[in-house]
Amino acid sequence: LDLNSDLGEGYGRWALGDDAAMLEVVTSANIACGFHAGDPATIDRTVRTAVERGVAVGAQVSYPDLVGFGRREIDVPPDELTADVLYQLGALEAFARAAGSRVRYVKPHGALYNRIARDPVQAAAVVEAIRRYDPALPLLTLPGSVAMEAAREAGVPSVAEGFADRAYTAEGRLVSRREPGSVLHDPEQVAARAVVMATEHQVETADGTQVAVQVRSLCVHGDTPGAVDLARAVRTALEQAGVTLEAFA
Amino acid sequence: LDLNSDLGEGYGRWALGDDAAMLEVVTSANIACGFHAGDPATIDRTVRTAVERGVAVGAQVSYPDLVGFGRREIDVPPDELTADVLYQLGALEAFARAAGSRVRYVKPHGALYNRIARDPVQAAAVVEAIRRYDPALPLLTLPGSVAMEAAREAGVPSVAEGFADRAYTAEGRLVSRREPGSVLHDPEQVAARAVVMATEHQVETADGTQVAVQVRSLCVHGDTPGAVDLARAVRTALEQAGVTLEAFA
Amino acid sequence: LDLNSDLGEGYGRWALGDDAAMLEVVTSANIACGFHAGDPATIDRTVRTAVERGVAVGAQVSYPDLVGFGRREIDVPPDELTADVLYQLGALEAFARAAGSRVRYVKPHGALYNRIARDPVQAAAVVEAIRRYDPALPLLTLPGSVAMEAAREAGVPSVAEGFADRAYTAEGRLVSRREPGSVLHDPEQVAARAVVMATEHQVETADGTQVAVQVRSLCVHGDTPGAVDLARAVRTALEQAGVTLEAFA
Amino acid sequence: LDLNSDLGEGYGRWALGDDAAMLEVVTSANIACGFHAGDPATIDRTVRTAVERGVAVGAQVSYPDLVGFGRREIDVPPDELTADVLYQLGALEAFARAAGSRVRYVKPHGALYNRIARDPVQAAAVVEAIRRYDPALPLLTLPGSVAMEAAREAGVPSVAEGFADRAYTAEGRLVSRREPGSVLHDPEQVAARAVVMATEHQVETADGTQVAVQVRSLCVHGDTPGAVDLARAVRTALEQAGVTLEAFA
Repeated sequence: LDLNSDLGEGYGRWALGDDAAMLEVVTSANIACGFHAGDPATIDRTVRTAVERGVAVGAQVSYPDLVGFGRREIDVPPDELTADVLYQLGALEAFARAAGSRVRYVKPHGALYNRIARDPVQAAAVVEAIRRYDPALPLLTLPGSVAMEAAREAGVPSVAEGFADRAYTAEGRLVSRREPGSVLHDPEQVAARAVVMATEHQVETADGTQVAVQVRSLCVHGDTPGAVDLARAVRTALEQAGVTLEAFA
Repeated sequence: LDLNSDLGEGYGRWALGDDAAMLEVVTSANIACGFHAGDPATIDRTVRTAVERGVAVGAQVSYPDLVGFGRREIDVPPDELTADVLYQLGALEAFARAAGSRVRYVKPHGALYNRIARDPVQAAAVVEAIRRYDPALPLLTLPGSVAMEAAREAGVPSVAEGFADRAYTAEGRLVSRREPGSVLHDPEQVAARAVVMATEHQVETADGTQVAVQVRSLCVHGDTPGAVDLARAVRTALEQAGVTLEAFA
Repeated sequence: LDLNSDLGEGYGRWALGDDAAMLEVVTSANIACGFHAGDPATIDRTVRTAVERGVAVGAQVSYPDLVGFGRREIDVPPDELTADVLYQLGALEAFARAAGSRVRYVKPHGALYNRIARDPVQAAAVVEAIRRYDPALPLLTLPGSVAMEAAREAGVPSVAEGFADRAYTAEGRLVSRREPGSVLHDPEQVAARAVVMATEHQVETADGTQVAVQVRSLCVHGDTPGAVDLARAVRTALEQAGVTLEAFA
Repeated sequence: LDLNSDLGEGYGRWALGDDAAMLEVVTSANIACGFHAGDPATIDRTVRTAVERGVAVGAQVSYPDLVGFGRREIDVPPDELTADVLYQLGALEAFARAAGSRVRYVKPHGALYNRIARDPVQAAAVVEAIRRYDPALPLLTLPGSVAMEAAREAGVPSVAEGFADRAYTAEGRLVSRREPGSVLHDPEQVAARAVVMATEHQVETADGTQVAVQVRSLCVHGDTPGAVDLARAVRTALEQAGVTLEAFA
């Protein structure tokens, strides 16, 4: 199993999260590429540290939206969205190469992640960027999403990810963040769910039944002190359950 | 001899210059990388066309300054400047690779070009980015500049460029644009100077004497209709003088 | 009747349209406020010229979207959209005051204009900014739009505008730009429609019938040389028909 | 005496400092206007809170430099710098008016503050913006600076500020931040210096002598938890010494 987290999400004077702590926990780092966060110097430091610790570097591509932190859907025409993703991929690659590594995968951020899970036009535009850049580069996304289908059609590999701290529906989808109880905060509970997802390939739904979820990577968040503790609890529980943690890429 | 020009300098809705016409004239295209001009979709189109026509793609890296078109000197600390150049280099490379080519050289733009001709700290920072990215990538700059010396010290190749439409001093430096007569506009005169620079390796100075200038590339501008005609006149005169035009990279 | 046009839509090095020519034609200038176009120095020049010529200054507020020229819908949360509009209103007002005038009205730009014609949440957010800033400031928008209704509910005045160069439906709505024939280019035809709209308060629809349109302002475009000629033709025809042209504000 | 502090310096997702705590300490708030920090929604919240607490609102104008937090000198041509300051002044004013108040003064930020303390061209450009906007609006700056002289020449009022936590030279200038010992961190020492500056109009220099400093406002910083405690210590000591704290504007 792989553990991934959003990192490098500061911008200039502004820091966000404890990247150094999280890079001791995760096996893959989704590094912001400058469109929602991540100025060049921050990217440089984050990539260097990730490579030093053997953490795989992924491109956390976004809509161009610093002020909204990439959390606003934007009607970017598909050819411009393809170009936006290529731009970010290449920018991050420069730092990865300079640090002796490569970009290993692509994980869209925020509103773009959610949009391409259901919008085939923007999904195809993101996948087209990967196909043009390097068709062997995997897209990290939700199992069963429109984005995963778009990748399949284009011959681009995809990797399924899950969220141990999010409530699931009986169909195996995430419960919207706007619903009460959609995000779990108790480290013990979240860690236990992670172990069940990793070893039994299922998760307890909001209404108490079990649903199958086959994921290759679990996402953990690190932008608050409590989140770092939660991520550590997940890692420890998985290791104690005998799950081998390693990057998928 | 190589002919280079600044291209891809539109931004979104705004166009600048006649890139299609200039790509029929030049052998190297200094393509804006998004910091002073050049949104991703514009970069994509410009790189594709350049590669289709066999024109070498160079990274026209800049200070982060859209509103000032990269013409304002900025006191960027050296490690941040190195990261800025890496970011732009990588971003452009993504489009070059997607078009089946590579970035062949680096030419800083505007205020950064002028600053590193005399400031060893910023010059070393730009060269450090090239060294970390690919130490075989040449820097296109003024002969005798601090930037050229910084490249030499770092083991990065440099290529000397000249300007057939600019007045030179007796020391072989450019007369400041603020001086009257510093920029020449007559196509016949400029074309004749280009031929002398290419074949006799010298140029007539502002006070009428000759000074030696050894250049591998001549810069021509294309952002006005008259400029395109002037660039064509330079190319025609060089060809008629038997000068072979080809990219240096 | 008022004639309005989008002006000041350059940005730094990039110019757009012939503002000087258009300021001889229109009675109201929708001046870009920096979010989709219009850097501070461009705003300053445009406002000064408008005030010198007695043209009313309006705030052409937009989503924050330089790269997309404000033509992309963005899911800006309502309180942030209200703040965005306040920011732009105030910024423009500084130049209007420095030129001895005031901002006289608000006309949202591009995707924001279209979005608030149908989205009550964003419409209310824009109107809320006007209400907080100066509830006597009119909103220039489509007759019958959700935006006009939101203004009415908030006690903010609105002014109806029409487009002599756009095809109308039998319900008095604009035919989408994506439809063939939705934009008219013949100056004579457009001028004739303008006269009918101004004097008979109706317009011929795409299927040849007449529909009532009661507008206080007509929008003319100026971002191409042909557009300036068309705008002049509209003004001349209206004057010859005895229509008095003056700003509504 | 007035106590001023830089506030509203977050941007979108990124927070900076404890504005709520500082608004209990200071009498004047230098509020970021969007060029180095401060998106519109952050400005709105900060201005509302300042006005509710009776704290005077000042415009903390900056170079356009989000990524560098306004700490990089930029060679902005004077007419463009004047326009930049007008733009920021007006933007902030919209929020101040909507909150039932006004912008009371101007305090340039970071590199612009330092640059206009010595550069007469940029100093005149900043003052020209104030003169055009409202020539009664005071400029808060260093006593004896070029900026103060530029204000005097333009008939714009200026207000002298001091720094209780900075070392002074025998000439009454600030010791450069690059020098060891230039910034004091001990709350007791800083508070004692503040009292001496307020009541005896002098300050102990780095070499142990006293120099006269006549200031109307003291600057306190609030972007770290320790800084808030230091600011509170300064306020308490001044009150205990019988100094009346009130905004100068």
